[in-house]
Amino acid sequence: MRELLEAVAAGELSPTEAEARLAGYVTTDAGRFDAAREHRRGAPEGILAEGKTPAEVATLATAALDSTGRAIVTRVAAADVAAVEEVVDESVDVVHDERASTLVARRADYEPPRLDATAAIVTGGTADAAVAGEAATVLEAMGATVERIDDVGVAHLGRILDHLDALRAADVLVVAAGREGALPTVVAGLVDTPVIGVPVSTGYGHGGDGAAALSGMLQSCTVLSVVNVDAGFVAGTQAGLVARAVSDARAGAE
Amino acid sequence: MRELLEAVAAGELSPTEAEARLAGYVTTDAGRFDAAREHRRGAPEGILAEGKTPAEVATLATAALDSTGRAIVTRVAAADVAAVEEVVDESVDVVHDERASTLVARRADYEPPRLDATAAIVTGGTADAAVAGEAATVLEAMGATVERIDDVGVAHLGRILDHLDALRAADVLVVAAGREGALPTVVAGLVDTPVIGVPVSTGYGHGGDGAAALSGMLQSCTVLSVVNVDAGFVAGTQAGLVARAVSDARAGAE
Amino acid sequence: MRELLEAVAAGELSPTEAEARLAGYVTTDAGRFDAAREHRRGAPEGILAEGKTPAEVATLATAALDSTGRAIVTRVAAADVAAVEEVVDESVDVVHDERASTLVARRADYEPPRLDATAAIVTGGTADAAVAGEAATVLEAMGATVERIDDVGVAHLGRILDHLDALRAADVLVVAAGREGALPTVVAGLVDTPVIGVPVSTGYGHGGDGAAALSGMLQSCTVLSVVNVDAGFVAGTQAGLVARAVSDARAGAE
Amino acid sequence: MRELLEAVAAGELSPTEAEARLAGYVTTDAGRFDAAREHRRGAPEGILAEGKTPAEVATLATAALDSTGRAIVTRVAAADVAAVEEVVDESVDVVHDERASTLVARRADYEPPRLDATAAIVTGGTADAAVAGEAATVLEAMGATVERIDDVGVAHLGRILDHLDALRAADVLVVAAGREGALPTVVAGLVDTPVIGVPVSTGYGHGGDGAAALSGMLQSCTVLSVVNVDAGFVAGTQAGLVARAVSDARAGAE
Amino acid sequence: MRELLEAVAAGELSPTEAEARLAGYVTTDAGRFDAAREHRRGAPEGILAEGKTPAEVATLATAALDSTGRAIVTRVAAADVAAVEEVVDESVDVVHDERASTLVARRADYEPPRLDATAAIVTGGTADAAVAGEAATVLEAMGATVERIDDVGVAHLGRILDHLDALRAADVLVVAAGREGALPTVVAGLVDTPVIGVPVSTGYGHGGDGAAALSGMLQSCTVLSVVNVDAGFVAGTQAGLVARAVSDARAGAE
Amino acid sequence: MRELLEAVAAGELSPTEAEARLAGYVTTDAGRFDAAREHRRGAPEGILAEGKTPAEVATLATAALDSTGRAIVTRVAAADVAAVEEVVDESVDVVHDERASTLVARRADYEPPRLDATAAIVTGGTADAAVAGEAATVLEAMGATVERIDDVGVAHLGRILDHLDALRAADVLVVAAGREGALPTVVAGLVDTPVIGVPVSTGYGHGGDGAAALSGMLQSCTVLSVVNVDAGFVAGTQAGLVARAVSDARAGAE
Amino acid sequence: MRELLEAVAAGELSPTEAEARLAGYVTTDAGRFDAAREHRRGAPEGILAEGKTPAEVATLATAALDSTGRAIVTRVAAADVAAVEEVVDESVDVVHDERASTLVARRADYEPPRLDATAAIVTGGTADAAVAGEAATVLEAMGATVERIDDVGVAHLGRILDHLDALRAADVLVVAAGREGALPTVVAGLVDTPVIGVPVSTGYGHGGDGAAALSGMLQSCTVLSVVNVDAGFVAGTQAGLVARAVSDARAGAE
Amino acid sequence: MRELLEAVAAGELSPTEAEARLAGYVTTDAGRFDAAREHRRGAPEGILAEGKTPAEVATLATAALDSTGRAIVTRVAAADVAAVEEVVDESVDVVHDERASTLVARRADYEPPRLDATAAIVTGGTADAAVAGEAATVLEAMGATVERIDDVGVAHLGRILDHLDALRAADVLVVAAGREGALPTVVAGLVDTPVIGVPVSTGYGHGGDGAAALSGMLQSCTVLSVVNVDAGFVAGTQAGLVARAVSDARAGAE
Repeated sequence: MRELLEAVAAGELSPTEAEARLAGYVTTDAGRFDAAREHRRGAPEGILAEGKTPAEVATLATAALDSTGRAIVTRVAAADVAAVEEVVDESVDVVHDERASTLVARRADYEPPRLDATAAIVTGGTADAAVAGEAATVLEAMGATVERIDDVGVAHLGRILDHLDALRAADVLVVAAGREGALPTVVAGLVDTPVIGVPVSTGYGHGGDGAAALSGMLQSCTVLSVVNVDAGFVAGTQAGLVARAVSDARAGAE
Repeated sequence: MRELLEAVAAGELSPTEAEARLAGYVTTDAGRFDAAREHRRGAPEGILAEGKTPAEVATLATAALDSTGRAIVTRVAAADVAAVEEVVDESVDVVHDERASTLVARRADYEPPRLDATAAIVTGGTADAAVAGEAATVLEAMGATVERIDDVGVAHLGRILDHLDALRAADVLVVAAGREGALPTVVAGLVDTPVIGVPVSTGYGHGGDGAAALSGMLQSCTVLSVVNVDAGFVAGTQAGLVARAVSDARAGAE
Repeated sequence: MRELLEAVAAGELSPTEAEARLAGYVTTDAGRFDAAREHRRGAPEGILAEGKTPAEVATLATAALDSTGRAIVTRVAAADVAAVEEVVDESVDVVHDERASTLVARRADYEPPRLDATAAIVTGGTADAAVAGEAATVLEAMGATVERIDDVGVAHLGRILDHLDALRAADVLVVAAGREGALPTVVAGLVDTPVIGVPVSTGYGHGGDGAAALSGMLQSCTVLSVVNVDAGFVAGTQAGLVARAVSDARAGAE
Repeated sequence: MRELLEAVAAGELSPTEAEARLAGYVTTDAGRFDAAREHRRGAPEGILAEGKTPAEVATLATAALDSTGRAIVTRVAAADVAAVEEVVDESVDVVHDERASTLVARRADYEPPRLDATAAIVTGGTADAAVAGEAATVLEAMGATVERIDDVGVAHLGRILDHLDALRAADVLVVAAGREGALPTVVAGLVDTPVIGVPVSTGYGHGGDGAAALSGMLQSCTVLSVVNVDAGFVAGTQAGLVARAVSDARAGAE
Repeated sequence: MRELLEAVAAGELSPTEAEARLAGYVTTDAGRFDAAREHRRGAPEGILAEGKTPAEVATLATAALDSTGRAIVTRVAAADVAAVEEVVDESVDVVHDERASTLVARRADYEPPRLDATAAIVTGGTADAAVAGEAATVLEAMGATVERIDDVGVAHLGRILDHLDALRAADVLVVAAGREGALPTVVAGLVDTPVIGVPVSTGYGHGGDGAAALSGMLQSCTVLSVVNVDAGFVAGTQAGLVARAVSDARAGAE
Repeated sequence: MRELLEAVAAGELSPTEAEARLAGYVTTDAGRFDAAREHRRGAPEGILAEGKTPAEVATLATAALDSTGRAIVTRVAAADVAAVEEVVDESVDVVHDERASTLVARRADYEPPRLDATAAIVTGGTADAAVAGEAATVLEAMGATVERIDDVGVAHLGRILDHLDALRAADVLVVAAGREGALPTVVAGLVDTPVIGVPVSTGYGHGGDGAAALSGMLQSCTVLSVVNVDAGFVAGTQAGLVARAVSDARAGAE
Repeated sequence: MRELLEAVAAGELSPTEAEARLAGYVTTDAGRFDAAREHRRGAPEGILAEGKTPAEVATLATAALDSTGRAIVTRVAAADVAAVEEVVDESVDVVHDERASTLVARRADYEPPRLDATAAIVTGGTADAAVAGEAATVLEAMGATVERIDDVGVAHLGRILDHLDALRAADVLVVAAGREGALPTVVAGLVDTPVIGVPVSTGYGHGGDGAAALSGMLQSCTVLSVVNVDAGFVAGTQAGLVARAVSDARAGAE
Repeated sequence: MRELLEAVAAGELSPTEAEARLAGYVTTDAGRFDAAREHRRGAPEGILAEGKTPAEVATLATAALDSTGRAIVTRVAAADVAAVEEVVDESVDVVHDERASTLVARRADYEPPRLDATAAIVTGGTADAAVAGEAATVLEAMGATVERIDDVGVAHLGRILDHLDALRAADVLVVAAGREGALPTVVAGLVDTPVIGVPVSTGYGHGGDGAAALSGMLQSCTVLSVVNVDAGFVAGTQAGLVARAVSDARAGAE
């Protein structure tokens, strides 16, 4: 610990980074950032912009950058992006995916992880794009190769069968679907790898807002595990944990 | 009316049948039987055995036979069948479909309707057999040609595609499915005729007992109309009304 | 396929229409339009304006016009109508039904289908007008003759009985009702043709937003099939499929 | 109080009746009986047999007879009736209505109330008989004239219109209906007196067990008040309170 | 009928009023107004402003005034009041109750009904004022004497007991309560007349928006009938029907 | 630890008690018993008999007796009591409260705790007796003085006010109520000490099985905390923790 | 009473305070303020700003200050604070806690209560701060010492264990948690004092808005009592009642 | 195909096995067995005994043995085991796990798969044993090494931390928990591998039968994917798919 404190004293280490290393988290005005999560849980901590002011988002993003070299923010609005861009150093690389409503910022010296594994992300329609984009953002941040297969609704089986090879080539699949949520079941019937279903909050009337999709996926007559409605970030991270397990095994295979 | 009453006096017409013709229904100890329903609604009145004693079932079946020449009973147990067989005349033809839990009794002089139209009944698995059987019973009673396509679950697309010609040959389809209830959506994506979905009360936990199937069918991203959970009789009758409309049109009957 | 590509090369066929013919769908910035749906499913693909920007609506409407000669848009706002009118050719006929919030655009060379069949659309009150209008729009687009019977709530039986002849003259009926949703049951008790119930999202408190109407229609003591709350487009299309089956049968009847 | 105690001492008054007059209730091994309720609330206290042993039912019935001269028991099984008959005096008049599952016992010296008012009880089908019977039992016990109008389901409007005069002659109506529960709405549209709806726990699948009927009655587009599912006793008592208010007013009318 | 038409021709009767008398309703651009409802159902038709434009409200109010001499509008906003005031004749008396959000307009020649009966309206807190005001408006419009007893929540029994005489003096009571909705139960335990409970959409979290109040009233251990959440108009009308029955009986009118 | 093991070797300590002291729990064929819970949580661990065989109940009761000197079993049937009585030593004192369905067994050398604090347990009716009995059992086992106030339903305020002194004398109150569950609210309005509400699974139809009572207590317009439906043991233990805090403070133990 | 009225006449007592002392409440244009609640219930009456206009909030705050010397307002917006500050005397001390959205105003002569007891308030994350702040405000107003332990989510056990001493030092704990709501269970497993759980309305999709947290706390496998979602004020007051009982006992301990 | 048929003709291949190879499934009186599922989906097809007669279970088990060499039956009763044991050959190895209610039968010549991967199965209490046992059965059948960690409820953190090494050693974890279902969240906070949560249908009252556990897991503040309530077989299979992906990668099989 002494070394750390001396580095701080010498100005070689920011107090933020020192706190992150010692306590595992960073305290900010906008709440704590769980800097040790990636190490402890093997998955990056995301910052949920929804329900926070742009200033709070920028504060937390800075804490993340300072302590881990990277910040991943989900459900960002334009104002959040502007706020982050204003506070970060010019050398920081900020990528904003509008469709996914995600922002990834990286310090120049950040070494992104690389996994030797592929995750496919499959959607039923354009309404599923934001959720799938969130999954893609975190999977890419974790280092997986991401394959997108979009607009393959169950009411048109031909579209799905066209992508059979890509579906089967992936090590793990995230399948997002709203309305009746049957797509993960149909896809899981075609592959022999883990499929993670994400219900999307589309639909209306009885079973709307993803409720029918969630219950349908939980009732699936094939093998699926699911996450909550619109939880693209969770699904992507879970897929990333599988991808890393596979990648680590590959790396250890002689 | 006088003629009717004279026929009753002469013993040429039973009081039951006379009441049915005059009032449209028959009063029994076990409740009223809506004898005029077939004429008024174009669909036979079914007798639901569930919740009635075998004696009540037999009484209502007799009233149906007396007033319309035929009795259709659903959700029958063995005791109901025995009770009906005991009270009816030898000349009455009693057919008991064990899987569908239905009983159809016909007087020797009963002229069954004949429709020039085909209804397909599609199921996802053995658990859907009872519900599909109920639909088949009423469709056959209405005179439609019934085509059964069973065990074609969505987790195995190959099974469905094997039956494409039969699916497309039908004038109307009843598709029964439990669990996630995606089969009607997949089938409706393959045909250009009306599809009526019937959720089946299978499944467990969240969305069990047909709830996921019902909400999934209501959220279908294709065109379906649905009936309540396990309502095979209603689905079959609705399909029968479509079949009769088609058959009448084929016969040139405007 | 070669012919098609030559036609494109020669400028005789737009790339959009060629894609539609080859792949069955058209890819736009605003998502895919399922151009083959009408052929495959026998029902036109509708464009749901809700949740899309006017620009996206206009893009998809153009894709629909280019590939099928017609665009049907539901739940349009004034801005959507303006956006479509701005991008389409002068020769395109644009009809906006304000009450139904629908827009139908047709290229000058579009040959609308004509069915020899009548569908009645029945409503309980003014609150059901938008939903019924959606059903009417798609039924008319499919070529059926549409008969409107409005404002016939169950609390005033006289109003319903006044329309008995019109109700019985239809080949198929769509009945929209909010609040307690009893109207389809009462209507179905008066006719011998298929009745499709549409719950409408009126009502308040317990069972509001169409929930009571939906459960009441599913529990109907007569024969109905239903669609989801406010799904006027689905109900209309399902009725259109019945109407076409009847019309085809009539056409084939000697 | 002294008089009462002296009457007890003299054996002219049972301790039970004395307790009832002093405290307003009677304490038994099977719980308290609210003897003062009829006086305080204007409505007799019913004893719910369901969930009690026959011995407990008999004990409470005895307490009721001792303290008020009458016992009203609902949802009785045969064993409950036998248990009551065994413990009560020969002079006590015990009436068991099998269909309503009610039992009314009266001491020989009991003076039943008489109201100058009529309540109609209307049902949609045989499944509503038990609930309606409970309402009838309490209404008769309160002294109202009860008019029964049974089996008038909404799917057959003719049956309802046949009873228009009887419906309009009543001072208050209790209308019981299961499934979609539309009957109270239709009836209330025909009369200008208070209608109390009772949902009945029939139906199956979505909205079954009276849930659709309850929500439909709460959403009624006409004027109704309702009670809980199967609460025939409550509906009957509420109608009885209206009938008594009318009767009292008639008696006071110069 | 001839007389009516001659009166129209002679300008003695407006076409609106003639239509109302002949058909029972008046057709306007904003929908139909059920002019015969008061006669048929014994209760005035209310115009619900919510969900209508001020112009539509004014149109319907005019139709009501023309055909029945009076218009009752509920859930009015300031704009609705302004719109009505603008279109109606100076001689029309317009009363706007801000707390109740109701408007009552009366033609100079309108003869309001007078009932010889009193209805009490009881509330638990200020949040129930709007709902109770709606009930009061319709009760007064029906001619009943209205007694208001406000702010008597169950958490302070003393407040309720202070009003015992007023509670017992009423012929019928409407009790509005939000949150846990226990007030109608407590009140009904103190009187021997009909109590109608109105759940109010207050509360938050589990059971909020009136859901706990509704289920609590339906489960009441005393005798109540209830209306839907916030249905002050329905509760008031139902109480008005009771009040009129009592008043008619008092008048000796059989 | 050595001492413990030597005591075991010397036969002075049973292996069960040694395991309990070392590991905090005892392993049996019927699962683990959390012997350290009373020390850690300050509340005795109860054994829930429901869902276990009598033999399993007896095994766990023995483990509890061996390790803590006492066993508390809830929701016992007669067979469970018999099974426990058969396996325990004669010197063990076994108390079975039939109404509460609880069993408390104590070794002869067990020193029960004694608290200088009083808890009142209040119920609305006989149906709440079992739940209240469970609370009483655990409160007595924790050493509190328990005051029972039964049958004080909200529909009869007089009964409640009769007990005002007893209600105010308690340091903490557990109030159990089914149906509409208003009793805790009314009681809490009368005292200035903590009230813990327990919804009881009575009631039927909408809001039955304790659902209305739970939501009503959560919505209470006064100050309450609640436990789950029928959770008499939890409510009693929570009240016991309050009683002990008060008792400790009284004893001057800081 | 005479003395009071003379004091009013002499201008020594405001009419508000006199009404409060005589009637227990103060009547204002914005509703009644329950001035006697603190005395009767031992807990201060809070003024809920949500749903009231700033003027109404200021009126009620004035009534509270006049009658009790203090006003506690929850869920205040900036406009409410401004309105209160404008109307109150300069000598009044107004404290606005922005995070908790609470306002506490005290007259210069107000003697705040002091309790010899400590309450800990524990939160899982920043989203729980408002709810916890409400609890803190009322606990401080009741005179308890408040200990805050923030940001100790269950996904990082280390953070919780760091605070073991503080958790165990409190006499009573309020634990607020959203999402899955597991924190109160984990905390209750570590202490032997009463824990009150407050579900917070975070989360999304299935179980969102505090529903999962509420049901999880009700199902807790340890001993908890709970309040409704976001009911920080209720939880704080209930904890305050426990704290006062402990404090009173301490004061009485010689 | 000819070869297959010749082998059947020569008696070298059973017709069942031939059908399985050609069609992918085997048709029996008790429904179809999906023999190709293991190949297609990489997961064995389980036979659910619940809802089938012992004879049907035995028939399907025989079909499974004939076509794939192994049968896995879940939720077996003693009668099912007896029925299977009676029909299978002596050489077949039948293993019945009573706690898990599973049966695995293997032909003597069956070569079980072997995976180089470990799955941990973690439970909160004895009530979770059956669900966890089902997961273990399928994981072992798929060839994974299974590590059981039982009885580590969240109310006693010490128990969990005792198993940290075992938790971290697994490649994938299945965590079963009933009541509030917090265990998977706590476990997932301690490991960096995929965790699959299984809600168990314990609990009572609000959120009982696994509903609170399911919603809690879906709301988890860490990263989890979940399966439906009690879906131990699905969770085990999903974990098996992850284990096989890891094992294949370890084997260097790309």
